[in-house]
Amino acid sequence: MKVYIEPIGKLINEFTKLPGVGAKTAQRYAYKVINMTDEEAKEFANAILNAKSNVHYCKICGNFSEGDVCDVCKNRVADVICVVKEPKDVIAIEKLNEYNGVYHVLHGTISPMDGIGPNQLNIKSLLERISKGGVTEIIMATNPDVEGEATAMYISNLIKPLGIKVTRLARGIPIGTDLEYADEVSLARAFVERKTI
Amino acid sequence: MKVYIEPIGKLINEFTKLPGVGAKTAQRYAYKVINMTDEEAKEFANAILNAKSNVHYCKICGNFSEGDVCDVCKNRVADVICVVKEPKDVIAIEKLNEYNGVYHVLHGTISPMDGIGPNQLNIKSLLERISKGGVTEIIMATNPDVEGEATAMYISNLIKPLGIKVTRLARGIPIGTDLEYADEVSLARAFVERKTI
Repeated sequence: MKVYIEPIGKLINEFTKLPGVGAKTAQRYAYKVINMTDEEAKEFANAILNAKSNVHYCKICGNFSEGDVCDVCKNRVADVICVVKEPKDVIAIEKLNEYNGVYHVLHGTISPMDGIGPNQLNIKSLLERISKGGVTEIIMATNPDVEGEATAMYISNLIKPLGIKVTRLARGIPIGTDLEYADEVSLARAFVERKTI
Repeated sequence: MKVYIEPIGKLINEFTKLPGVGAKTAQRYAYKVINMTDEEAKEFANAILNAKSNVHYCKICGNFSEGDVCDVCKNRVADVICVVKEPKDVIAIEKLNEYNGVYHVLHGTISPMDGIGPNQLNIKSLLERISKGGVTEIIMATNPDVEGEATAMYISNLIKPLGIKVTRLARGIPIGTDLEYADEVSLARAFVERKTI
C-alpha cells in the first residue's frame, strides 16, 4: 500500500517544489491545507493563480507591476536610477523608506559560468532610458559578490562616457557586528574604504 | 507607496498561514510561484483544491481516505486495531512497514484544558467496531504525553472489561541516543520498564 492517498501525495509533492521545503515540511503544509475550510483553501488556490496571472513586469524598469507601468515609475521623478538584480531587491530597498528615486531591474547579473552575458540582461533598456535625458545619477545596487561586482563594472563602463555620475552602494562591516566576527573580505574592504570622521 | 503590489501581498499573506512560515519565507515562496510557468502554478492551485475536496475520512476508522472506506480497512483483517490521535500518525506507522493490522483515528486526545472530553473524540465508533467481534488486541498508540497517556488509560478502562488485550507502545530511551543526553523522564521510564535479556 502506498503511504499517502493520491490527493495528499500530490499536494505534498507540489509543496516540495517551494525553496527549502523538504518532505516533512511539505507534509505539515499539506495537513494544514486539509484542515482549512473550503473557503480558505479556495482563497489560497486563487491567490496562487492571481499572482501568476496578474503580476507583470513594468515596461519601463522591469519591476513587478500590476499594470504596464509600475507605481514607482508612475509617481516618481526619474533623475536617479537605482540598478538592481531582481524585483525582490526593489522591495528590500523600498522597505527602508530612504530612497526616493526610480529603479531599473536587470533580471540577473553577468555570470559566464551560467552562460549569462550582458545581452541576456535588461541593460539595453537602461541605456535607452538614459538617452532620453534628465538622469543625473545611476546607483549600482547589484549584490556585493563576484557577479554583482562584474555587472556593476560593466554597466558603469557603458554609462560613464555619457557624463553621468555612477555610484556603488558602500561596502564594509555590517552595523551591529563585532569586528571579531566580521568576514575577512568585508573587514579588508572596510579598511580600504575607510572614511575621515 | 505600499511595498508589495496587491497580488503578491495577498499570496505572501496566504503562505504565512502555513505552520512555521514567517514573512521572509512566505516572500520566498511567493517569488517562486511568480517564477513558475502558468502550467506549474495551475497544477499547484489544483493540488490544493483537490486535496481539500477529495480527502475524506474513512467511515470505519477515521483515517484519510479518497472513498468512503480507506485502503487499510478495505484490504486488511481487523483483528488488531492500533488507536492513534491523528491521521498523520497512521502515515508515520505505515512508513515503518512493520504493522499489518488496522487503525482507529481518535481525531484528538482528551484535554480538559482545551475543553476536549471523551465525547468529542472518535471513541464510540471504536467500541462499536469491537462489539462486532473478531478483535483480539487494541494497541494504544497515542502520544507519550499527558493527554495521550490519559486518553490511553481512559480507553483501556472501557475495553478491558470486554476481555480484549490492550497494549501500549513501549516507552524508554530512543535508540541511538547517548544516555547523557536522554531526557530525564524517558530515562526514568526506561528504568521502570527495564527488561530481562
